[in-house]
Amino acid sequence: MEKSFDRATLEAVLTKRFFYVPSFSIYGGVAGLYDFGPIGAALQQNLINVWRQHFVVEEDMLEIEGAIITPAEVLKTSGHVEKFTDFMCKDSVTQEVFRADHLVEAVLEARLEADLTAQTANAEISAGSAKKNKATKPPVKLTEQQIAKYNEILAKIDNYNKQELADIITEHDIRNPATNNSVTPPNEFNLMFETSIGPAGNHKGYLRPETAQAQFVNFSRLLEFNNQKMPFASAMVGRSFRNEISPRSGLLRVREFNMAEVEHYVDPNDKSHKKFSEVANIKLNLLPANVQEKGSTQTVEISIGEAVSQKIIDNETLGYFLGRIYLYLVKVGIDTSRLRFRQHMSNEMAHYACDCWDAEIKNSYGWIECVGCADRSAYDLTVHSKKTKEKLCVRENLETPLVYDALVCNPNKKVFGPKFKQNAKIIQETLESLSQSELEKLKSELDTAGKINIDANNQTFEISSDLMTINLQTFKENVREYTPNVIEPSFGIGRILYSLIEHSFYLRPEAELRTVFKFNPTIAPFKVLILPLSNNDLFAPFLIDIARKLRNNGVPARVDDAASASIGRRYSRNDELGIPFAITVDFQTVSDKTITIRERDSTNQIRGSIEVILDLVADFIYGRNTWAKATETYQLVSSTSD
Amino acid sequence: MEKSFDRATLEAVLTKRFFYVPSFSIYGGVAGLYDFGPIGAALQQNLINVWRQHFVVEEDMLEIEGAIITPAEVLKTSGHVEKFTDFMCKDSVTQEVFRADHLVEAVLEARLEADLTAQTANAEISAGSAKKNKATKPPVKLTEQQIAKYNEILAKIDNYNKQELADIITEHDIRNPATNNSVTPPNEFNLMFETSIGPAGNHKGYLRPETAQAQFVNFSRLLEFNNQKMPFASAMVGRSFRNEISPRSGLLRVREFNMAEVEHYVDPNDKSHKKFSEVANIKLNLLPANVQEKGSTQTVEISIGEAVSQKIIDNETLGYFLGRIYLYLVKVGIDTSRLRFRQHMSNEMAHYACDCWDAEIKNSYGWIECVGCADRSAYDLTVHSKKTKEKLCVRENLETPLVYDALVCNPNKKVFGPKFKQNAKIIQETLESLSQSELEKLKSELDTAGKINIDANNQTFEISSDLMTINLQTFKENVREYTPNVIEPSFGIGRILYSLIEHSFYLRPEAELRTVFKFNPTIAPFKVLILPLSNNDLFAPFLIDIARKLRNNGVPARVDDAASASIGRRYSRNDELGIPFAITVDFQTVSDKTITIRERDSTNQIRGSIEVILDLVADFIYGRNTWAKATETYQLVSSTSD
Repeated sequence: MEKSFDRATLEAVLTKRFFYVPSFSIYGGVAGLYDFGPIGAALQQNLINVWRQHFVVEEDMLEIEGAIITPAEVLKTSGHVEKFTDFMCKDSVTQEVFRADHLVEAVLEARLEADLTAQTANAEISAGSAKKNKATKPPVKLTEQQIAKYNEILAKIDNYNKQELADIITEHDIRNPATNNSVTPPNEFNLMFETSIGPAGNHKGYLRPETAQAQFVNFSRLLEFNNQKMPFASAMVGRSFRNEISPRSGLLRVREFNMAEVEHYVDPNDKSHKKFSEVANIKLNLLPANVQEKGSTQTVEISIGEAVSQKIIDNETLGYFLGRIYLYLVKVGIDTSRLRFRQHMSNEMAHYACDCWDAEIKNSYGWIECVGCADRSAYDLTVHSKKTKEKLCVRENLETPLVYDALVCNPNKKVFGPKFKQNAKIIQETLESLSQSELEKLKSELDTAGKINIDANNQTFEISSDLMTINLQTFKENVREYTPNVIEPSFGIGRILYSLIEHSFYLRPEAELRTVFKFNPTIAPFKVLILPLSNNDLFAPFLIDIARKLRNNGVPARVDDAASASIGRRYSRNDELGIPFAITVDFQTVSDKTITIRERDSTNQIRGSIEVILDLVADFIYGRNTWAKATETYQLVSSTSD
Repeated sequence: MEKSFDRATLEAVLTKRFFYVPSFSIYGGVAGLYDFGPIGAALQQNLINVWRQHFVVEEDMLEIEGAIITPAEVLKTSGHVEKFTDFMCKDSVTQEVFRADHLVEAVLEARLEADLTAQTANAEISAGSAKKNKATKPPVKLTEQQIAKYNEILAKIDNYNKQELADIITEHDIRNPATNNSVTPPNEFNLMFETSIGPAGNHKGYLRPETAQAQFVNFSRLLEFNNQKMPFASAMVGRSFRNEISPRSGLLRVREFNMAEVEHYVDPNDKSHKKFSEVANIKLNLLPANVQEKGSTQTVEISIGEAVSQKIIDNETLGYFLGRIYLYLVKVGIDTSRLRFRQHMSNEMAHYACDCWDAEIKNSYGWIECVGCADRSAYDLTVHSKKTKEKLCVRENLETPLVYDALVCNPNKKVFGPKFKQNAKIIQETLESLSQSELEKLKSELDTAGKINIDANNQTFEISSDLMTINLQTFKENVREYTPNVIEPSFGIGRILYSLIEHSFYLRPEAELRTVFKFNPTIAPFKVLILPLSNNDLFAPFLIDIARKLRNNGVPARVDDAASASIGRRYSRNDELGIPFAITVDFQTVSDKTITIRERDSTNQIRGSIEVILDLVADFIYGRNTWAKATETYQLVSSTSD
């Protein structure tokens, strides 16, 4: 199936059947924005519903819903204002804008292609057929060294910093291919959409680039809601925004998208997971960082239990979530032979992450990151807490109090204050901020030399041993206070959707290559198609009755009673919407109140009373029965027309 | 219940139990933005889920999902760039910003209060107790005329235009109460959040102020998806944004909110509805425009059928949707004695509407518009079509062709073109744009005077009868082309949520006035509370088993096993979350595997085997059984501790 895949055919169907289209297309559309029609919207909604059931309900997570508009202060603290950027350069004459790495990629790929053409052309010239190449780019021969260099740059394209990209652009004379003008050196472009909150115009805000921050800033309320119990997780589903420099690849790189994020808060000293045994035997295709660093993309199939015990996956909690992510993707219908988990190499990690695995799904654009699973460590809670002076931490009563010795400075209050006057406070603060090893050094200096020098407030203060002593003191703590680490599975719903669409798409070989989407009954937008054999008036009351019964049971159904189309034509145009079952009302229905049900992929049919068939449909949809099992009980009937 | 309502108590519970809180509160919060905690988020989600089932599934609507970021061109066409504004004025010294009508309201209400105080003070002075008034505003006596005038202004406050507000501010010397400075004359402030799309900075966009426009611009695709059949409806649920000048009243006036909108497309010549009989007997409290225009707010209770036949409600489709809105609000738990449907008066209608009814729900802030149901006529489809030159209309094959006579201009091509040269085209276009009555006038002029004058392209052209004739011609049309009218039920989910919270809130009189929310099982965030009698280890396996069974059935449950709290304390702290049922595991469970289930509002309990009770819970939640019926079958048992 992979080999015969034809993206143009798929895209034509997606547009024709209004799965999704560029937003505001009657106004010319906007790059990177999409409107989802009834099928696309329902697919997304079903992906989200299954996600909620699989994560929030089954894992007892605290789902919250935060604001999209986020004040600049919050995103300054999180690091997004400074670091959430791509590099942009401009055509030096027309001012056309490019994402720098994409431009380099496009130009070098074109040169490599032109070289190939040149080679072919040479071959063809010698074969006497040079004319063919007129329409394509002029062939340009490259040296062996150039080819090797270009391929090396393309392999590392995600990892260059600003200066490196600037050097590549200069060294390899990268220009705007459309105008042949030179381009400006790359500059950071922040990917957040900016807006202004309130009428005064002085309160800057951004559209959130992720749903994580609203969870972190509410950490204390979440912990309290969870009756102070650790570990636990919060979750959020919603729209996020990235002002991409050059959106492309359909739903894969867009400016507005649905994401679903879990923030699992865990004790940094204990990352075990009490349900780990439930996923330990699941085998995953892993692509660890050290394999990639050797230049290989060879995955290893290994159980999660084994991977954690070998420290390929760092800890049980991370392993548990990789397992749950896998199970979710299986449940919605992703082909697991096109799924791998790739560990980030250290140089590609986001600014907040200390370890990260991506669930990558292969589609016609390559291996695409669809779910990230990062260990954000204590980064976010720490920076927000520091900035706002609000504690975002866990206080844990210790059964056995913690007893330990530590060095402390004891100023002689009678003389210390009067001596340093207004500086006394800042000097004391400086002393209190010192580590135990620093204090150890100071103590030995104070003991030996009888004085030490302390830099504070841009001055140096001499403190003699009559002003202060440094002593070992015993401490006893009944409460342990710590900032949790955060494990964050983060799902790009649109990317999963697109991959699922590709994995579900096939052309029925026996029927003029008609398009089918094999969405499973949980994910399929409409569960049941209802159709009359013809537009005979006798069928109408049955259609209404069946439709009403299904709808009252909450089963989304679609009626196709367009008299002009044959029943075969109607089956196949609804296969294009991925409807798993079709109920047909025919003349036998009128006489004995039986109906047929057709399964989309086998196109087999069985017949039964209206009640029996509707119960069967409900069983299929809620996973209580399968078509294969049902055909053991009920006999197949010949299709009217398929 | 209404009388004893205490908003401060309610708000304290809502914050303490993290229903919702100001967004980013550790950063000081942002006015008009809220984060919804686990309870608030689930309530909203359940309101939306019921809405989807009630409207999209049961009514066969086409739900789509559009982009939030909207190019300025689209909102210019829809009228929002020009007209989606409030009036703002500024303190002339401090530049503090006010919404003009809110400022007038606040100042006049304060003056009326100060007058009341003055009257009370006079009474108290004569009674010898003048000291009491020191803390309040100085009493200022008003004249009878002033009191009457102020009350009149307050009554009409929503209807003043810019000039009228400016006049009121001058005439009544409205100042910033905090500084006593004068304020600037009011100016339009556009309520849309602005942003910039893409890196070049020259593509202006707004965050959508409603979800309607993305539906209108996709009309042709929707009609095609619906196999060209009329009438039909599209729907969208999602976040919208309004940059309020002064957000207030909690969830009722916010800058970011969830809305759910239906756009029902209907033939302007036939607004009947095929399911009208299903709602015709529902009685609604109506407050028609003509009653309000007489200065009354007296509602009339009348069936929808009667109201449509009396033309109080304009047509069946509008009536059908008012009925469906009513049924939805009943289903989620709104108290119908605090629900009315108010018709807009002509001067308060939105710029696109030609008729509008609001479902208003009474809460402690007054009667609040929670659902609007507007007839937008053909406004939106017409303006978008005109702007983009894309047809947004329905083409209907006529069984009997339409035959009619009409006047047309027939230029004599041989002489008309050569005579007017480059102006010929614009003159012809001008002639084609004329109405039949204009043509009639021209024809008689041309017949009488032998020439007519036509203004086009800023010139006047004389056309003599040798250049053109105007004749009656017979037309026959097999296809009728028309722009549908749109009936739009539009739901503010946050406003419904807040009203539902108030309607569900009560204090248990027999139990120290503990807070309870009586959310019904469909809407309640957690359906079941699971709790052990004490922290005895024997109970743990039962808790795990019950929780697992519920979750696998998709029933959101919460375990409260905090050993430190008594079972009574745990019941009541979960009544505060509105959990309808509580399952208790006690020593009898260990011996005979029975558990008790407690109903929140009656606090009654029944006992049965784990299987029986879990089946019962599922029946309650999916509406297959009620507590009242169950108590006829199962005997009540005495509560352990309630």
